Amino acid sequence: MRTDGRTAEQLRNVMITTNFTKHPEGSVLISVGETKVICNASVEERVPPFMRGQGKGWITAEYAMLPRATEQRNIRESSKGKVSGRTMEIQRLIGRALRAVIDLDFIGERTIWVDCDVIQADGGTRTASITGAFVAVVLACGKLLEEEKIKEMPIKNFLAATSVGVTDEGEPILDLCYEEDSTASVDMNIVMTDQNEFVELQGTGEEATFSPEQLNELIRLAQKGINELFNYQREAIGELSNRIGEHKGE
Amino acid sequence: MRTDGRTAEQLRNVMITTNFTKHPEGSVLISVGETKVICNASVEERVPPFMRGQGKGWITAEYAMLPRATEQRNIRESSKGKVSGRTMEIQRLIGRALRAVIDLDFIGERTIWVDCDVIQADGGTRTASITGAFVAVVLACGKLLEEEKIKEMPIKNFLAATSVGVTDEGEPILDLCYEEDSTASVDMNIVMTDQNEFVELQGTGEEATFSPEQLNELIRLAQKGINELFNYQREAIGELSNRIGEHKGE
Amino acid sequence: MRTDGRTAEQLRNVMITTNFTKHPEGSVLISVGETKVICNASVEERVPPFMRGQGKGWITAEYAMLPRATEQRNIRESSKGKVSGRTMEIQRLIGRALRAVIDLDFIGERTIWVDCDVIQADGGTRTASITGAFVAVVLACGKLLEEEKIKEMPIKNFLAATSVGVTDEGEPILDLCYEEDSTASVDMNIVMTDQNEFVELQGTGEEATFSPEQLNELIRLAQKGINELFNYQREAIGELSNRIGEHKGE
Amino acid sequence: MRTDGRTAEQLRNVMITTNFTKHPEGSVLISVGETKVICNASVEERVPPFMRGQGKGWITAEYAMLPRATEQRNIRESSKGKVSGRTMEIQRLIGRALRAVIDLDFIGERTIWVDCDVIQADGGTRTASITGAFVAVVLACGKLLEEEKIKEMPIKNFLAATSVGVTDEGEPILDLCYEEDSTASVDMNIVMTDQNEFVELQGTGEEATFSPEQLNELIRLAQKGINELFNYQREAIGELSNRIGEHKGE
Amino acid sequence: MRTDGRTAEQLRNVMITTNFTKHPEGSVLISVGETKVICNASVEERVPPFMRGQGKGWITAEYAMLPRATEQRNIRESSKGKVSGRTMEIQRLIGRALRAVIDLDFIGERTIWVDCDVIQADGGTRTASITGAFVAVVLACGKLLEEEKIKEMPIKNFLAATSVGVTDEGEPILDLCYEEDSTASVDMNIVMTDQNEFVELQGTGEEATFSPEQLNELIRLAQKGINELFNYQREAIGELSNRIGEHKGE
Amino acid sequence: MRTDGRTAEQLRNVMITTNFTKHPEGSVLISVGETKVICNASVEERVPPFMRGQGKGWITAEYAMLPRATEQRNIRESSKGKVSGRTMEIQRLIGRALRAVIDLDFIGERTIWVDCDVIQADGGTRTASITGAFVAVVLACGKLLEEEKIKEMPIKNFLAATSVGVTDEGEPILDLCYEEDSTASVDMNIVMTDQNEFVELQGTGEEATFSPEQLNELIRLAQKGINELFNYQREAIGELSNRIGEHKGE
Repeated sequence: MRTDGRTAEQLRNVMITTNFTKHPEGSVLISVGETKVICNASVEERVPPFMRGQGKGWITAEYAMLPRATEQRNIRESSKGKVSGRTMEIQRLIGRALRAVIDLDFIGERTIWVDCDVIQADGGTRTASITGAFVAVVLACGKLLEEEKIKEMPIKNFLAATSVGVTDEGEPILDLCYEEDSTASVDMNIVMTDQNEFVELQGTGEEATFSPEQLNELIRLAQKGINELFNYQREAIGELSNRIGEHKGE
Repeated sequence: MRTDGRTAEQLRNVMITTNFTKHPEGSVLISVGETKVICNASVEERVPPFMRGQGKGWITAEYAMLPRATEQRNIRESSKGKVSGRTMEIQRLIGRALRAVIDLDFIGERTIWVDCDVIQADGGTRTASITGAFVAVVLACGKLLEEEKIKEMPIKNFLAATSVGVTDEGEPILDLCYEEDSTASVDMNIVMTDQNEFVELQGTGEEATFSPEQLNELIRLAQKGINELFNYQREAIGELSNRIGEHKGE
Repeated sequence: MRTDGRTAEQLRNVMITTNFTKHPEGSVLISVGETKVICNASVEERVPPFMRGQGKGWITAEYAMLPRATEQRNIRESSKGKVSGRTMEIQRLIGRALRAVIDLDFIGERTIWVDCDVIQADGGTRTASITGAFVAVVLACGKLLEEEKIKEMPIKNFLAATSVGVTDEGEPILDLCYEEDSTASVDMNIVMTDQNEFVELQGTGEEATFSPEQLNELIRLAQKGINELFNYQREAIGELSNRIGEHKGE
Repeated sequence: MRTDGRTAEQLRNVMITTNFTKHPEGSVLISVGETKVICNASVEERVPPFMRGQGKGWITAEYAMLPRATEQRNIRESSKGKVSGRTMEIQRLIGRALRAVIDLDFIGERTIWVDCDVIQADGGTRTASITGAFVAVVLACGKLLEEEKIKEMPIKNFLAATSVGVTDEGEPILDLCYEEDSTASVDMNIVMTDQNEFVELQGTGEEATFSPEQLNELIRLAQKGINELFNYQREAIGELSNRIGEHKGE
Repeated sequence: MRTDGRTAEQLRNVMITTNFTKHPEGSVLISVGETKVICNASVEERVPPFMRGQGKGWITAEYAMLPRATEQRNIRESSKGKVSGRTMEIQRLIGRALRAVIDLDFIGERTIWVDCDVIQADGGTRTASITGAFVAVVLACGKLLEEEKIKEMPIKNFLAATSVGVTDEGEPILDLCYEEDSTASVDMNIVMTDQNEFVELQGTGEEATFSPEQLNELIRLAQKGINELFNYQREAIGELSNRIGEHKGE
Repeated sequence: MRTDGRTAEQLRNVMITTNFTKHPEGSVLISVGETKVICNASVEERVPPFMRGQGKGWITAEYAMLPRATEQRNIRESSKGKVSGRTMEIQRLIGRALRAVIDLDFIGERTIWVDCDVIQADGGTRTASITGAFVAVVLACGKLLEEEKIKEMPIKNFLAATSVGVTDEGEPILDLCYEEDSTASVDMNIVMTDQNEFVELQGTGEEATFSPEQLNELIRLAQKGINELFNYQREAIGELSNRIGEHKGE
């Protein structure tokens, strides 16, 4: 039994609110347990200089936390004048994950900016960001379709992420909350598509190691959790779900 | 008649949600029309070095916008590696305003950090921040009282703020939305206490000027609007309202 | 009687030296009591990118202090690698104030850079900067006229600024020196034109508040002081005074 | 057959030169094919402030490339004034990996700084850095033992890393050179101990995905390569090899 | 004959105004031709951390130019967020030069900050800064003597600096103005004491070289010029001149 | 007799390894005693914006040390976010020195980037950098000649540098190692061509001064040492030596 009463294989409660703020082309508030992230997708009608003239689009992500998203207040990165290594790692991960399922040839010379801003943190903020960002990007593409700026949904597959880990007592668990995360001996973030394929798999021993057998068990848990997340995403997206994968470009 | 149907003397709809996120000692979501700001007050059990050993507290504010709080996405200040002049001006204003009504001698050697994060912007973000931040600080002081870390409510008076301005057609109006703000010839932010006293008054002609008569009319409008804001604050704070001003220290 | 023997309504001695250094198109040393500021106006034959092709000019201001302009030496902002919030606030104020009286349509695609460098500080450096900067800009425009780069004086009105405040004993006073400023309970900076119109009005209670009646009295004092400053400016500018307002824009 | 004539399961030539420069406590030049990295371990007789007084040590890593380590010259990060996201990610990875096999309780209140400076890059610089850094740290600990500053070898297991990937033709390969890396559809870095346990496993689809079966094959290749790397490390370290694991901390 | 009518061996007009601003312990305005520098010496009653507890003092210099000190306006270094290589080179030079003649053992645990701010530039700003800074430091030490904070004048010798160069026609000249400096093929800055000893000698060929014979001639010119500068310094310092060298340290 | 057994007039052992790394157009490892510097020359097929369209080339240098090149580990400049004054001074010196012997009119619109990275430091890193960088630039020009991108060797003369100094016992010595450098009372870096002409001469008293006679002796020692360095360079360059000076451009 876990601190919040869940079984080892159980996700926290998930809620995805669409159209959370009014300006972005896609705006989502995702809650995974007590972790809450605003995921906004913004469409800009141009690409960065290194991509101009190729007829392709670009997608990039940024990630931040409100200073008091956490138990202790953190110094704002804008005040420190630089972005931490942790933040950079996370925003690179989110961008890379999204690029694996969106066909950039089919969004025209546009940039989709994805902003993931954590307003309340309780573990798993990077995986919640990916799961929520996917929905925000689908909504933004839905808007481009509606405005007839693009002709086909450029998204090839569903994409979601969760964390798995090994407790300090050696038990593999799904979807770690902060308390679990901070004592786990192994922490792994897994991003998958609905084709049961991996996009990212990042496992780390925290002053510890893990065996091939543990790896297999962690992957099994993650697959289970991610499949449930796809259902939450389908519900949030509604009819647009049917258009995912309508075009499998290369 | 204004673009959103209001009269010249009418505030936008105001909503103050308390306990918006779980970690901060005081957490508020304030909406003024389509402007939405998360105002969090965090208590830290120490003061900055220049204030140590004086038995007094400190209060300071930070302000930021989510990149897509606005119609066009803005570059994140953490990515630029520096805070803009506009941001600095606003966070200095919020801190100064709050210090005018809180008696720092009565909070002990603690710092109250106030974070105002705009999640949706439609004009008047700095005045909404002040109005919401006041509530967050009261809640945080309420918590200190409850935990018996302090003995008396250190807040002397209610504090709220609004904007007033002169339209390009010369009409004075209360509580400008973004569209009005961007075409106004005069823009003024006023912060007042419930004693009908000014804390800050910042009036600016945008490539324009204003007469002493116009100044008087703008002040009258602001007084009207701010008195209404005090009611929203009282309702949000509930019983703690009665403790404001219980101690008038110097 | 004030610390330096002045009455409540008395300005400090004002001196405006023109052509203080040789390179700038307009160069002024202004002294207001012991406060001394070099105000240089530089004409650059282009505008920033966002204004190109509109046939209009731009004016912008920067402000700094020599490290030992003050009683205690300050760390140089270039050494700190960033400009303080106070500096940004002041340079934004100076720029905004000047733009209210200069018709940018009549200076062509040029930028006027105004540099206010405080070499000795004794309170009121931002208002002295505005009063001196105005003269420097007039001189620079005079040079453009002389060289027939522009045809009409683009300046619509005289512009000057002073500070007023309320002492800790509750007395309203004009033109605060540093000692007065650091103990005042209310501090207000007022920028006006010679049409008796306001350009900026920034009043702040320092952990204090002020009443509508005090506001009126402070405004009266400021009007008196600023009218005297216009005379110093007229004398410094000489014949060019007659050309101010010859063209009232658009 | 691969571009450099290797089979899919073959490592590049590996060479580890110890005592490469004279000042560091442990200094190594590692070559993996054409990739060359100087790995220096420096012992500092104190720990960062957040660890003082706990009787434990700390280990941290930094990573950089000479500007012309690559085909095209890169701008120096010191000139840009900030460290890139890629650099931060790599140095966090190196530090984390080393901490998994070194028992910080047994090095006293010391910091071991590991500097990995790539002087020539041809793919796999981060995994070569880890493999070389391990040797440098062992040498530095050897020096501490020799000087009797510590009593037992604090290193629990051997640690090495390699990359594996899937070519754009779908073939899994071991130890990618730059040319292979830049066209691979999947790229994975694996860090393991000589107990056949994982320390880090980071797999990424580059605008692509990978199946559970491919994951298994990649892991098999990595295990093979890493076992060979342990032999190169043993040879470089010589007699100190026998002391690895002599102490298995709690 | 030179552009300004001087002979090859002639200094420009020199003027040294003492007590130029009121706050610094030593304040000087030095003019060398059209080059004008404010040199302020500030005494701080502590030394940097690395020097504490040694009973010795420290002296350090900073150098800057007003943006429009030059023909073309320069971007402020505080706006750029970093100090240029040229500025750093100059301020290191000034500090080093002063340390050669001041006996830091005799000023107690104090720091003397020397700020050289160029308000008008016409070549030779770094040498004028040194010559003026020396006077400012003597005045500051004079004040310490007067207040009986130190017992002996800690300055061992007079110190002054000038530039010499070779014109593009091969003629050696003394004290180059900007126009001469920008076309010279060799540029040399020399700092000397009144014992006819060198403190610094920095000669540079600008895409050119110079022979040992030219070096000798340049040194002769510099000696002549610097000896004249000592006279201007003696006059500025007045009676304090007699105390220079009264104590020849350790 | 010196600490390392040399006479006062003796250089340390010099070794120049060419083609040290594979990517740069010219790559050199120079050792001067225990000082070791990697000097890479990179050719970029464009010039900086301010030089475009003039048909001329540009050459610029950067200098850095590995953190543990020295006895004590130094903080990486990329981590500090800024380049030190010392680094800037050195890289400006290297660039200036090289520009004195290379005829930029004869390399076309190209930039030669010279990177000097000290991997082991024992005094004289800046002069070793110049001596090594010269060889790297010759090799890079040799490659341009070979590829027929340029027609004539653009280098006019050999260029080398050494340090000389006065020990604290007053003895002039050649080529100071770190231990000598840190106790010397005078330190001088001299850059010369094989025409016996000076390019740079920078002499500094470290809280000390030096006489004209000492200057002459130091120059004599430097000339002797530099002439020996030319021989090492000739040997490293081989046949290309004959092409130095084939073209004496203006």
